[in-house]
Amino acid sequence: MIKVVAKAKLKSDVNPEDYIMLAKELVAETRKENGCLYYALHQDIKDPAIFTMLEEWEDEKALEQHNQSAHMVRILPELKKLRESGELNIYREIK
Amino acid sequence: MIKVVAKAKLKSDVNPEDYIMLAKELVAETRKENGCLYYALHQDIKDPAIFTMLEEWEDEKALEQHNQSAHMVRILPELKKLRESGELNIYREIK
Repeated sequence: MIKVVAKAKLKSDVNPEDYIMLAKELVAETRKENGCLYYALHQDIKDPAIFTMLEEWEDEKALEQHNQSAHMVRILPELKKLRESGELNIYREIK
Repeated sequence: MIKVVAKAKLKSDVNPEDYIMLAKELVAETRKENGCLYYALHQDIKDPAIFTMLEEWEDEKALEQHNQSAHMVRILPELKKLRESGELNIYREIK
């Protein structure tokens, strides 16, 4: 199992509600995918312009398929237009 | 419920195993705390010098108590000595 932390900072003139609306569509579609164990949008409690998608995937193959899915290809570029910056890391738990 | 993502990049001359050893002690102690729902160390699958603690807490009060706990006060400064940089965000899920 792998985890993804995808953090984004919105441009200062973007309404967070516009980002949320788009991201919610992505969440709904992604949760139907094979190999998706968890996928949820989170907002920083101190800075409403910071959003992070917390994700859990069965394996890297499932994540690759997600990245090529129709909803990602359609919605991700729209989300990126609203972002000032972003960072993505893929993790494995250390037991 | 709130979530914490605490990301750290180690100094280039630090052995990740030294960081893991210290962090594991913190994980073991923290999991015994009231209000701790999840607390686990994660390592980036591409860059072994990047570590993230993924955390879930009942509420902000539980997180504050954690920050003042004996094990945090003892171990966190030791972890920080091994880090080049760090960032911490507190999130709430957008449903």
